[in-house]
Amino acid sequence: MPQRVEIVKKIMDSNDRLAQNNQAILDQHHVYGINLMASPGAGKTSVILETIKRLPAGIKLGVIEGDTAPVTIDADKIVAAGIPAVQINTGGDCHLDANMVGMALPELPLEELNLILVENVGNLICPAGFQLGTHANVLIASVPEGDDKPYKYPKIYRGLDVLIINKIDLTPYIDFRMDYFQQGVEMLNPGLTTFALSAKTGKGFDAWIAWLTDKVKAK
Amino acid sequence: MPQRVEIVKKIMDSNDRLAQNNQAILDQHHVYGINLMASPGAGKTSVILETIKRLPAGIKLGVIEGDTAPVTIDADKIVAAGIPAVQINTGGDCHLDANMVGMALPELPLEELNLILVENVGNLICPAGFQLGTHANVLIASVPEGDDKPYKYPKIYRGLDVLIINKIDLTPYIDFRMDYFQQGVEMLNPGLTTFALSAKTGKGFDAWIAWLTDKVKAK
Repeated sequence: MPQRVEIVKKIMDSNDRLAQNNQAILDQHHVYGINLMASPGAGKTSVILETIKRLPAGIKLGVIEGDTAPVTIDADKIVAAGIPAVQINTGGDCHLDANMVGMALPELPLEELNLILVENVGNLICPAGFQLGTHANVLIASVPEGDDKPYKYPKIYRGLDVLIINKIDLTPYIDFRMDYFQQGVEMLNPGLTTFALSAKTGKGFDAWIAWLTDKVKAK
Repeated sequence: MPQRVEIVKKIMDSNDRLAQNNQAILDQHHVYGINLMASPGAGKTSVILETIKRLPAGIKLGVIEGDTAPVTIDADKIVAAGIPAVQINTGGDCHLDANMVGMALPELPLEELNLILVENVGNLICPAGFQLGTHANVLIASVPEGDDKPYKYPKIYRGLDVLIINKIDLTPYIDFRMDYFQQGVEMLNPGLTTFALSAKTGKGFDAWIAWLTDKVKAK
């Protein structure tokens, strides 16, 4: 049997208070906020870009881009798609926190928006520990990452409101047992709202856009 | 232009001293140590399993498995392949550190080994900040993660001794500009030793195994 060496981590709390502040600001402006998390390369920016193309005309989107390095590759793509975007450079930190998002929110034209997508840093561990004050935590998993991720990164799956399974166009070329994956998800987060889609082909986007539209209209 | 909010992070130093201790222990036992890093799902365990199959008879391998959750999926696979493995559960932390590896080393039969692969936690950010006392930092990038990762996660690329590009079998189905990817790598880490391979088909493994064999023989 493999050995195990356990190290317990302390939990910070001031973040939760700042998250509450952020949510109050969003609510005041009738803006629905989403914390979009994923592993590096799961397709956060691609999903956002495809979402931009398909949003109904009444939905006015803003984007907050979290990056660990001072590169604007993703933010530039969003701006090129005609959407206001603010970049947060975490200076090497592995997640966004409520303080950073609180600093970014006033840089967006909140009066004109009714939806904000916050693209967190590509990471399946750190972001799970920090609420941002958004209304929903959404994770993008992707088929090439493998079907064992819920078992290995349980904390992030437990805190989700929505799961997106991206890159389903690659399913024929990859050994991904959807049953095993979904069994892991169900164990951690029973009945989790899930959308399987492909940002490359657009397949499966209709249901995700419908969900998003309902949430924004209810604000 | 997207805005940028800069937050500077403090750097810890006690880790480096513990890393030196680890390297002294490895050297004393003539064991070559590798810190194997990657994004979640890039194929660390698959590369290790394929490496186990192909190692020359004289090379005796041990594995340290870093996991953020108390699951032994990866460690079980290594043990099933007949290789001694120790699991470190970081209790939610996003990287291994020298202290954890120092606690795991005595659990392996160091006298019988000449190579140790340390499978770090799946993450492109945190592991870059913590030397473990191994002799080489190796990153496994994978084709489905996308060709922009060196630009987005520069710190981990700067600290590498070897880069493995895995899942090259998926190249026909994915828009991955190898030129753009390698240009980013070259900018951060000129002349970096790189192996492109597929843990699924075995393609490209010969050069990686030859490099590994040379390093172990030189100890």
